[in-house]
Amino acid sequence: AKPPLQQGSAVVSPPTGAAYKHEGQPMNKSEAQVDKELAEGKYDYWGIRRKQLYKVDGTPWVWHSFTPADSYQADTSVDLEKHWPVSGVADWVALKTVKFLRFWADTLFQKRWGCRAVMLETVAAVPGMVAGMLLHCKSLRRMEHSGGWIKALLEEAENERMHLMTFVEITKPRLWERALVFAVQGVFFNAYFVAYVLWPKVCHRIVGYLEEEAVISYTHYLEAIDSGKIANTAAPAIAIDYWRLPKDAKLRDVVLAVRADEAHHRDVNHYAANIKTEGKDLKESPAPIGYH
Amino acid sequence: AKPPLQQGSAVVSPPTGAAYKHEGQPMNKSEAQVDKELAEGKYDYWGIRRKQLYKVDGTPWVWHSFTPADSYQADTSVDLEKHWPVSGVADWVALKTVKFLRFWADTLFQKRWGCRAVMLETVAAVPGMVAGMLLHCKSLRRMEHSGGWIKALLEEAENERMHLMTFVEITKPRLWERALVFAVQGVFFNAYFVAYVLWPKVCHRIVGYLEEEAVISYTHYLEAIDSGKIANTAAPAIAIDYWRLPKDAKLRDVVLAVRADEAHHRDVNHYAANIKTEGKDLKESPAPIGYH
Ligand SMILES: [Fe+2]
Ligand SMILES: [Fe+2]
Ligand SMILES: [Fe+2]
Ligand SMILES: [Fe+2]
Repeated sequence: AKPPLQQGSAVVSPPTGAAYKHEGQPMNKSEAQVDKELAEGKYDYWGIRRKQLYKVDGTPWVWHSFTPADSYQADTSVDLEKHWPVSGVADWVALKTVKFLRFWADTLFQKRWGCRAVMLETVAAVPGMVAGMLLHCKSLRRMEHSGGWIKALLEEAENERMHLMTFVEITKPRLWERALVFAVQGVFFNAYFVAYVLWPKVCHRIVGYLEEEAVISYTHYLEAIDSGKIANTAAPAIAIDYWRLPKDAKLRDVVLAVRADEAHHRDVNHYAANIKTEGKDLKESPAPIGYH
Repeated sequence: AKPPLQQGSAVVSPPTGAAYKHEGQPMNKSEAQVDKELAEGKYDYWGIRRKQLYKVDGTPWVWHSFTPADSYQADTSVDLEKHWPVSGVADWVALKTVKFLRFWADTLFQKRWGCRAVMLETVAAVPGMVAGMLLHCKSLRRMEHSGGWIKALLEEAENERMHLMTFVEITKPRLWERALVFAVQGVFFNAYFVAYVLWPKVCHRIVGYLEEEAVISYTHYLEAIDSGKIANTAAPAIAIDYWRLPKDAKLRDVVLAVRADEAHHRDVNHYAANIKTEGKDLKESPAPIGYH
């Protein structure tokens, strides 16, 4: 028997008091206050009002930047050991690039795994966005379908951004680290943009290898938690809702979920690189949408 | 009573024969053929295989670039008459820009509504992608939530791209028209990118006004169908699945759904411009995710 179709947004009417979300701290406004703001402002005219969403257990959903439909249970059974052996110049370039980047990350962050996670996730969310955007534009120009790759790559970008939103609740970066993020993004976004236009195969392979390293880094993070070097604090509320963790989930559960995500991104990107290696367009092999 | 949570992807296991989609023509591969291809290729190693999705009625989902969770019923009850009256310099600049663009569109396409739709939808899918991407990068740099605006704007871009994928099934553009699309995208993408960095308020207002014009154009399209100037042909299969139209839906039903989408984009973008007019960041007012 096939399951019934299930839809994207859990929605109820009439809209009730909206729950506002800012910088990780949910803040509830009363229904009366929202009504007052709508009555005063120009927004009212457009009739736009955020629908109140609910969790599986019926309690209100407090996040505005992602919906219950974006949440999922991480598939931690994913194979963590997979590695794509270098085969050809493109792979060699990709692996060397990643090993070079790994050297700098190791030097800069050493064993400060939480800080490392925050910093690297600001970078990790760039490739999927750049590639998704370029494929979107290509699909428009050629008036051709994408085979789902736009969606799959934007999903990856969004997932990495959620990693960032989670770790920033655990480790608050210092000012100079925030400044570094600005500089690195400026360079990396443009470099990846140009590289993806010129040599998408190498770009996907680089991300595949980067994700192999990410799996290793998060394994070290777990070891630091298990050995007591890092306190196994309570999981942030956002992580509990995003990965549908139990209410008493700990940091360890969060890192396990994140590591599983990275392993899935590794698979998707090596897969994409392999399609390109065969001289095919990505759209010829359907993308694994919703592969977590 | 609150409704139960419903999830994003309709997924079944075990995976069966994949349905491939290329340029609007669904093509089914047998399960055996897919197995053979997986066994032969390198893809097997990554264990990535597109899950077979199903429609509400249990029949297989044939599209790979969008899922059943992306389909919806257009809310054609949306107010088609809404107009934001110019208030201030930014609005004036936006309206003049749109009237200037409208003049060129009218001159170029005149009453060839189908052709006009294809050409303009290649442009319409750009602003949401550019703005969504810029807000994604901003969210990463500042390590702050987006208030849902990244998702809402990317949804808009995807929706516009689906308009294109639909109309390209109805009207096949000529070679010079395809060449024009290349040139226009190169200019428009970069212009909108720079404009959004410098003056996002005007950009959202421009899109708001453009969508007001789009509603008018699609109303003309409908009139041409009703008067018999344009044949009310069968709706393309992709439109039936995307907007969940009845199996015997016609072009007229498709244009009605598209026009409703444009009216919703109008609301979202005027709303965003209004938030900016109040000197606030978009994230301070939650985005209407899933507002169709
Ligand atoms: Fe990550
Ligand atoms: Fe990653
Ligand atoms: Fe459109
Ligand atoms: Fe539009």
